[in-house]
Amino acid sequence: MDKKDNTRINEAIARLSDEASYQKLFHAYRDEEGLPSTEKLEEAVNLCRAILFPGYYGKAKVSKATIRFHTGVQVEQLHALLSKEIYAGLCFADPDCPQCNESALWNKATTLSESFLTTLPSLRDILATDAEANYDADPAARNRSEVIFCYPGFRAIVNYRIAHELYRLDVPYIPRIITELAHSETGIDIHPGAKIGHHFAIDHGTGTVIGETSIIGDYVRIFQGVSLAGEKLPPDECGNTIRGIARHPIVGNHVTIYSNTTLIGRIHIADGVVIQGNQWVNQSIEK
Amino acid sequence: MDKKDNTRINEAIARLSDEASYQKLFHAYRDEEGLPSTEKLEEAVNLCRAILFPGYYGKAKVSKATIRFHTGVQVEQLHALLSKEIYAGLCFADPDCPQCNESALWNKATTLSESFLTTLPSLRDILATDAEANYDADPAARNRSEVIFCYPGFRAIVNYRIAHELYRLDVPYIPRIITELAHSETGIDIHPGAKIGHHFAIDHGTGTVIGETSIIGDYVRIFQGVSLAGEKLPPDECGNTIRGIARHPIVGNHVTIYSNTTLIGRIHIADGVVIQGNQWVNQSIEK
Amino acid sequence: MDKKDNTRINEAIARLSDEASYQKLFHAYRDEEGLPSTEKLEEAVNLCRAILFPGYYGKAKVSKATIRFHTGVQVEQLHALLSKEIYAGLCFADPDCPQCNESALWNKATTLSESFLTTLPSLRDILATDAEANYDADPAARNRSEVIFCYPGFRAIVNYRIAHELYRLDVPYIPRIITELAHSETGIDIHPGAKIGHHFAIDHGTGTVIGETSIIGDYVRIFQGVSLAGEKLPPDECGNTIRGIARHPIVGNHVTIYSNTTLIGRIHIADGVVIQGNQWVNQSIEK
Amino acid sequence: MDKKDNTRINEAIARLSDEASYQKLFHAYRDEEGLPSTEKLEEAVNLCRAILFPGYYGKAKVSKATIRFHTGVQVEQLHALLSKEIYAGLCFADPDCPQCNESALWNKATTLSESFLTTLPSLRDILATDAEANYDADPAARNRSEVIFCYPGFRAIVNYRIAHELYRLDVPYIPRIITELAHSETGIDIHPGAKIGHHFAIDHGTGTVIGETSIIGDYVRIFQGVSLAGEKLPPDECGNTIRGIARHPIVGNHVTIYSNTTLIGRIHIADGVVIQGNQWVNQSIEK
Amino acid sequence: MDKKDNTRINEAIARLSDEASYQKLFHAYRDEEGLPSTEKLEEAVNLCRAILFPGYYGKAKVSKATIRFHTGVQVEQLHALLSKEIYAGLCFADPDCPQCNESALWNKATTLSESFLTTLPSLRDILATDAEANYDADPAARNRSEVIFCYPGFRAIVNYRIAHELYRLDVPYIPRIITELAHSETGIDIHPGAKIGHHFAIDHGTGTVIGETSIIGDYVRIFQGVSLAGEKLPPDECGNTIRGIARHPIVGNHVTIYSNTTLIGRIHIADGVVIQGNQWVNQSIEK
Amino acid sequence: MDKKDNTRINEAIARLSDEASYQKLFHAYRDEEGLPSTEKLEEAVNLCRAILFPGYYGKAKVSKATIRFHTGVQVEQLHALLSKEIYAGLCFADPDCPQCNESALWNKATTLSESFLTTLPSLRDILATDAEANYDADPAARNRSEVIFCYPGFRAIVNYRIAHELYRLDVPYIPRIITELAHSETGIDIHPGAKIGHHFAIDHGTGTVIGETSIIGDYVRIFQGVSLAGEKLPPDECGNTIRGIARHPIVGNHVTIYSNTTLIGRIHIADGVVIQGNQWVNQSIEK
Repeated sequence: MDKKDNTRINEAIARLSDEASYQKLFHAYRDEEGLPSTEKLEEAVNLCRAILFPGYYGKAKVSKATIRFHTGVQVEQLHALLSKEIYAGLCFADPDCPQCNESALWNKATTLSESFLTTLPSLRDILATDAEANYDADPAARNRSEVIFCYPGFRAIVNYRIAHELYRLDVPYIPRIITELAHSETGIDIHPGAKIGHHFAIDHGTGTVIGETSIIGDYVRIFQGVSLAGEKLPPDECGNTIRGIARHPIVGNHVTIYSNTTLIGRIHIADGVVIQGNQWVNQSIEK
Repeated sequence: MDKKDNTRINEAIARLSDEASYQKLFHAYRDEEGLPSTEKLEEAVNLCRAILFPGYYGKAKVSKATIRFHTGVQVEQLHALLSKEIYAGLCFADPDCPQCNESALWNKATTLSESFLTTLPSLRDILATDAEANYDADPAARNRSEVIFCYPGFRAIVNYRIAHELYRLDVPYIPRIITELAHSETGIDIHPGAKIGHHFAIDHGTGTVIGETSIIGDYVRIFQGVSLAGEKLPPDECGNTIRGIARHPIVGNHVTIYSNTTLIGRIHIADGVVIQGNQWVNQSIEK
Repeated sequence: MDKKDNTRINEAIARLSDEASYQKLFHAYRDEEGLPSTEKLEEAVNLCRAILFPGYYGKAKVSKATIRFHTGVQVEQLHALLSKEIYAGLCFADPDCPQCNESALWNKATTLSESFLTTLPSLRDILATDAEANYDADPAARNRSEVIFCYPGFRAIVNYRIAHELYRLDVPYIPRIITELAHSETGIDIHPGAKIGHHFAIDHGTGTVIGETSIIGDYVRIFQGVSLAGEKLPPDECGNTIRGIARHPIVGNHVTIYSNTTLIGRIHIADGVVIQGNQWVNQSIEK
Repeated sequence: MDKKDNTRINEAIARLSDEASYQKLFHAYRDEEGLPSTEKLEEAVNLCRAILFPGYYGKAKVSKATIRFHTGVQVEQLHALLSKEIYAGLCFADPDCPQCNESALWNKATTLSESFLTTLPSLRDILATDAEANYDADPAARNRSEVIFCYPGFRAIVNYRIAHELYRLDVPYIPRIITELAHSETGIDIHPGAKIGHHFAIDHGTGTVIGETSIIGDYVRIFQGVSLAGEKLPPDECGNTIRGIARHPIVGNHVTIYSNTTLIGRIHIADGVVIQGNQWVNQSIEK
Repeated sequence: MDKKDNTRINEAIARLSDEASYQKLFHAYRDEEGLPSTEKLEEAVNLCRAILFPGYYGKAKVSKATIRFHTGVQVEQLHALLSKEIYAGLCFADPDCPQCNESALWNKATTLSESFLTTLPSLRDILATDAEANYDADPAARNRSEVIFCYPGFRAIVNYRIAHELYRLDVPYIPRIITELAHSETGIDIHPGAKIGHHFAIDHGTGTVIGETSIIGDYVRIFQGVSLAGEKLPPDECGNTIRGIARHPIVGNHVTIYSNTTLIGRIHIADGVVIQGNQWVNQSIEK
Repeated sequence: MDKKDNTRINEAIARLSDEASYQKLFHAYRDEEGLPSTEKLEEAVNLCRAILFPGYYGKAKVSKATIRFHTGVQVEQLHALLSKEIYAGLCFADPDCPQCNESALWNKATTLSESFLTTLPSLRDILATDAEANYDADPAARNRSEVIFCYPGFRAIVNYRIAHELYRLDVPYIPRIITELAHSETGIDIHPGAKIGHHFAIDHGTGTVIGETSIIGDYVRIFQGVSLAGEKLPPDECGNTIRGIARHPIVGNHVTIYSNTTLIGRIHIADGVVIQGNQWVNQSIEK
């Protein structure tokens, strides 16, 4: 670099290092604790898959004789990994909290991680119904194995169901990062707060969006580009966005929604309704 | 972990290791043979790209003087890589087959891999027409090189054409995994069973879906969010999904379909038709 | 490989090494210079993020005491990385240029890289408005930190704003590769040539497309599946595609466009307009 | 590369590709089977360490509650890894064997691997005596943990004892590669064929050599640079080196040999003898 | 695995998981804290090199204009890395200590790391004299740069001097692991407890050993295979090895010791003495 | 870090960034050019091995049918890799040279690399004699393949012969780094300047040193710990070390030197002499 370069670049460095410049965008996190790690959370989700679907995921080859060794080791690894990420999430959620106590936070994190582990058996049960539903939904599927191993719709549902359990435990940030991992991979964006019944199927799925306060019944099937969107609420008296109010659709059992249709607002779709594609639906639909 | 933790976690491990719990979701694969590997198949697709488009892909710098050395080495590597993955796919397709013979399967796998290799020269020819079409379709493209190097539409078409050749050879699973790799990267979901003519162009492409029994002519151009979808068939007498029936659209030559339009069912779109965006089309269109 | 294999494979190698076969698809690039590297450009974008949002990205933990050390080192690394990639882009843009001089190209590349670095402080300012806007737009967001750290819409806007500065400097290829990185990760496809005002928000975003000559005002908010598309222009007298003409929409300030709507052609959307979802809009909209 | 370069380089390539040039140095190995892999064998040795010394090696943190899960998984991994390497060793040992049967070789390899696994419990017992002896030998050692974790002498003994068990099972090549791994790391070269009693200690160890037919008693301690060397035997009648004859020293119990001393030939060192450093010893020593 | 295999292997697993079998070799370390990591310590030593010898080591290219940025970042990284490893060392040193307090240990670790950092400037000064001495010692050296960049003797001295400062601070284990890293790479084994003056040179060095209580003056030069060994002390009344007593040689200033010579016991070598190679020296040498 | 820490650490940073502190140890290398890379040179040596010994090294499986493709690609890769490293070595050798011209240096580097490539066929011929000799020397060797694949003595000779060709071409630094790679791995330290005849064998080898001006005949065999050392020369009139004078032994044909013997100074060892181990030899030996 000749001198002229240095001048311009050094000016840029000085401006970028000026506190006034970065104060709105600086994350002053708790000393010694990093941010949650998307890489580590991807590892954690992969461990969940290896535990839930023995033989499909994970590096090891399991047989019925050795499955208990593998499950034991993987659950222990998952516990360690998830505890750290939940801890990072708790610190991130409240970086400046003055009276906050590190070992109290760490205890909270390990307890939350442990509570999540206890939901794995029931997660496996409900995901078995989703595998069934996705297989039935797609005439191009050869067998259930193919659905479990490589269907993006099923993949996104797995991440959502893991994230939803963590969301129910009030773990901050981590559930959202887990559903965003699936969003990036599959184009399917399910908010971890949504409530979704069993036998849920998503076909193709790119562009599918299911918002935070959506409620979906059992045996529902949706296609690519379908949105369950929230209506825009007016700001509060101070002009701030109001958060957390129910604003997404409620979808009954045995409903099918074809591609690129948007359902918007707290509308109700009755059991058994089939909605054509490319619609803008902002009113409830009776049977 | 204190004792209370251990109790709850050990219960979870015990439940997860219980055969009744995992039997619906367990993949009892052939001893010593793993599942097909998405990483290895990504490597195989990258090798195809390096062979088909010398100078654009691959780590080595090729010149006309040395291109034959590189092609020789890469074809040999591709043969080894693909044989293993096809073998894994054959095992995955029929994990319990009792009379199945390992070396017969391996011979079948290497023969299929070899047959695929012989299609590479014609794959290059048809992909040259696709590169041309995508360049013509996008006024923002500077030259053909940019299309080959970084256009997601072209990228997805390459994966589809590779997968389609493997599909025609009746290789199980592998074609689908290859198109899913492109789906994840580009948001474009083309089933390997679809039949697509030359000079095919996809612009932007996120959310585009082309179903298993679609037939597409030459010089067709489609945009993001376009679906060639299958109509839902009634189940058979036993209530099972009927598989393999022609149920997706047939699109003629020189057709253009604008963004977010869905074509559904075994309808026919005549040569030269231009379809506006955001439509739900469930009837044939004459010129 | 038995002999029969070798024969068929060697024929394929011979055909693939035949100059007639590859000449349309061969990239005869400048000796000693490789193509731009998507991996390196991803690294460069990550360095930009680490510089712009101290504490959110990058491996190092920064404190106010040490931020200037980190900024200094990261800007220097970014300069080195970007200079090489811009150089590769310049070579790729004109591979055969006979009178081209390597050290002149290298000087041009380092000067362009340096000019980009000087825009980083103002990039940080405008991105602070985008973070604000995305937070306000989503009632599900807990705080600004979550938006900066894991919202795909914001992520895509960061890549776009970096790419747009490089586009304004007439750097070839590199801007497009940077926006394609975000496209692949988020499904949001913003052409680096588009002009976009401050406080820009994208919600969910999968399938969103903003074309090359689009102009977007301040405080605009768009949803998933929205396209700002170009109308198809007739070819020139020689039958070639005309390139570079303004053909995408102009969107005013404070406009909201709901999911899956397509705006096509050089239409004007007036300030403050709200457009419902799933529309095909090919005419200007007055307030 | 300009043309002149190409000429000289192409000549080199042609000469190097000429069969006459490489025939003495070409390894025509069995199709589809690679050579044994030093990386994989290093992994196998590390797995042995993790199994034998729980808590010292391996990535996982073991507790008494979970040790059986880890042991189960690690033994299974070791079995898979070692079977493949032993198979590669068997193929390497007899690459041209015409009547050789692949699945017979593979069965032999897995049986040998399994037989090795059954020796792990007794390997742990004898290595416990070696850890004890190395701790007693070095006044600078703080505790046994330090010896197990980071003493090069103990490290080399572990590799030797693993290799010796494989040598006793007549596994070709693999034992030697395992002791060479330790040789490279520690400078201690123990031939896997040597017979060494319990409570064996090596201090510092760089340059220590223990030849193929050496026999060493219990409670022996040796230092850096000590060689137990073979005397040179006259060639056989055809002028060829005679292989496999006992030609290295026999060392009794409770012997100490100081640094840089060479013992050469089939000499006997009586129980309890202490040998000064820097000696050339080619005659037996009585007590 | 057929059944017979499983039986034998399962027996081995059961025996290896039996507490009686592993109790002598089990490291019951503090929950949540792993062992010191040789990989991380190698990273820490490399960071020291990058700080001490700007321009020779480390990935970044430093110039005088930017050296302070790099030094700032690297010292901060080293502090973080070293604090963790020292902490792991403290935990390893006393794994069962019941009254031990985690945050007290952590505070101790960060203070020790910080104290080490303050010695870096004087470490640089004395290493400059060693570089000078090694250059003068070897007529084959072209310049000082070559010595700093690739001489194994100098490399081992750097590790020793870093380790010695940590040893003086009473950091457990870590100093020994750092000198063992150099031992493995160079074959030179210097105990971190040895005291060595300035202008110290080691030529070639493989097999060189310098024991724990050795004292070496200034301007000393030694060759490969030279040992400064401890005499064997009689055990204490209980038959245990006595630890920590001065038992290695004291070497004066300006001494040269040629290859493969062993000095043993608390002998004194006077200033200026030159000792021939291949000697066994167990008595003091006057000038 | 609390404030007290920061003070002490910031002082250390300030002292370390002070030019007076680092000026003796700073490498002010040519802008844009890094130092030679040991990793890249290890890769280059591995490529040489893969070219010279087809089937033993390298990732690809070669057959006689495809060996020419592999050789072509590998020679091209080696040329690119080595040219860059030689260039870095030339820059390192003369970092301040003001009139130095970058493209002249680059041309020199590629020409040197090319000249080295032309020596590969004869390197293969002489290494075939070394493989033969090492096999004959060791009664424990099963066949030549084992020698080529895993004998450290042969490994060090390969590195030496590669380095010696580069030394003869006057390439600076690179030859020394290549022999140091073998030194670190095997404990065998052969200076690239030594001249060594054909059929050269080293057994075990740890601690073996062969100095810069040594001359060794054909059919020579040496053991571990053997040094061919230089006598110490008096400094020149200004007190500086005299460099480059012949000062190491000359060893005739068919000589054997047993372990730990040192030969020192420009002495002559006649043809056919056998030297016992643990000797200090500073006078010539007649037959």
